[in-house]
Amino acid sequence: MPRKTTKKSEGLPQMTLRPVGIVKSKIKEPRLVVKSGDLDWRGVLKDAKKERSTISKILISDDFTGILDGIEDFSHILVLYWSHFISKADRSLIKVHPMGRKDLPQVGIFATCSPVRPNPICVSAVPLLERKGNVVKVRGLDAIDGSPVVDIKPYVPSYYAVNEAKVSNWLRQIEREFAEALKGKEWRH
Amino acid sequence: MPRKTTKKSEGLPQMTLRPVGIVKSKIKEPRLVVKSGDLDWRGVLKDAKKERSTISKILISDDFTGILDGIEDFSHILVLYWSHFISKADRSLIKVHPMGRKDLPQVGIFATCSPVRPNPICVSAVPLLERKGNVVKVRGLDAIDGSPVVDIKPYVPSYYAVNEAKVSNWLRQIEREFAEALKGKEWRH
Repeated sequence: MPRKTTKKSEGLPQMTLRPVGIVKSKIKEPRLVVKSGDLDWRGVLKDAKKERSTISKILISDDFTGILDGIEDFSHILVLYWSHFISKADRSLIKVHPMGRKDLPQVGIFATCSPVRPNPICVSAVPLLERKGNVVKVRGLDAIDGSPVVDIKPYVPSYYAVNEAKVSNWLRQIEREFAEALKGKEWRH
Repeated sequence: MPRKTTKKSEGLPQMTLRPVGIVKSKIKEPRLVVKSGDLDWRGVLKDAKKERSTISKILISDDFTGILDGIEDFSHILVLYWSHFISKADRSLIKVHPMGRKDLPQVGIFATCSPVRPNPICVSAVPLLERKGNVVKVRGLDAIDGSPVVDIKPYVPSYYAVNEAKVSNWLRQIEREFAEALKGKEWRH
């Protein structure tokens, strides 16, 4: 009997994420949003420094009690969270101006770190300040309050730290501007 | 009128991932699997070096043509892929012995980098060797052939590179063993 469907997704697994926890943060509003089919940055450069020192908590659901055991032996963690303010329509954007800046070249979404992407999973490398039971406290997490957390991994420098990595000219320009706003303080963890 | 349901997931967005591409690799079998409720490592230390130099391709779906534009200005990328060989049952594991080794302390899944986790999303930082249209070529991607890719991000050292990060004793022990198997070659990109 001939097959009736030849969907592209045929044979691929159902990839549905379970929220494992939630972010509690003072950051309440997204800084990068979509406007007229492009990115729109609503942040203020001088707030960047404050946000880098923001303390957030991640509350892991009781369903996963024990899953953090041993994480306190690592100084840093990777947090994977879902940018829940990205609408379904926004997930279909293909090309944008970085941070919505028309003076920078238009690039594909995968050449940006924008939370606006087909699968709005953000990856943040942050210092782990404390772990108590199902709660971890971290510094500098850029997730807004209420973001669902989908994964936490230990930060392993031999696997994730690539110092010599080269970045694009437009990103170097943005980083220079941030560094100036931070008054010479390096734009780093 | 009283609310009838008080589901934990109430109010949370439906988090369904769209595959944006697929991995083509010589690595055909997972090295880390689940056996009797714990991890089981089927790899061979001396193969580690070979795998670190494996060239893989990522084929991005035609639906997303243009989404890679500008990625070639970065030397490294983060690849987020779905470990599709992890069964639904395996996703409920909470604690394991790292790499299935009973001589190491049992830890929570979030203290490991194992692909076995509630949301089996793996994050790999790899050198970008080439980009042609919808295809990128990378070195050292640990994804097995056929893994669905869910995201690609540019590797930004100021955001992801944390050299001074401290890791657990058991991980340092594993890294020492790998380093010896690699004959003194550093276990790095």
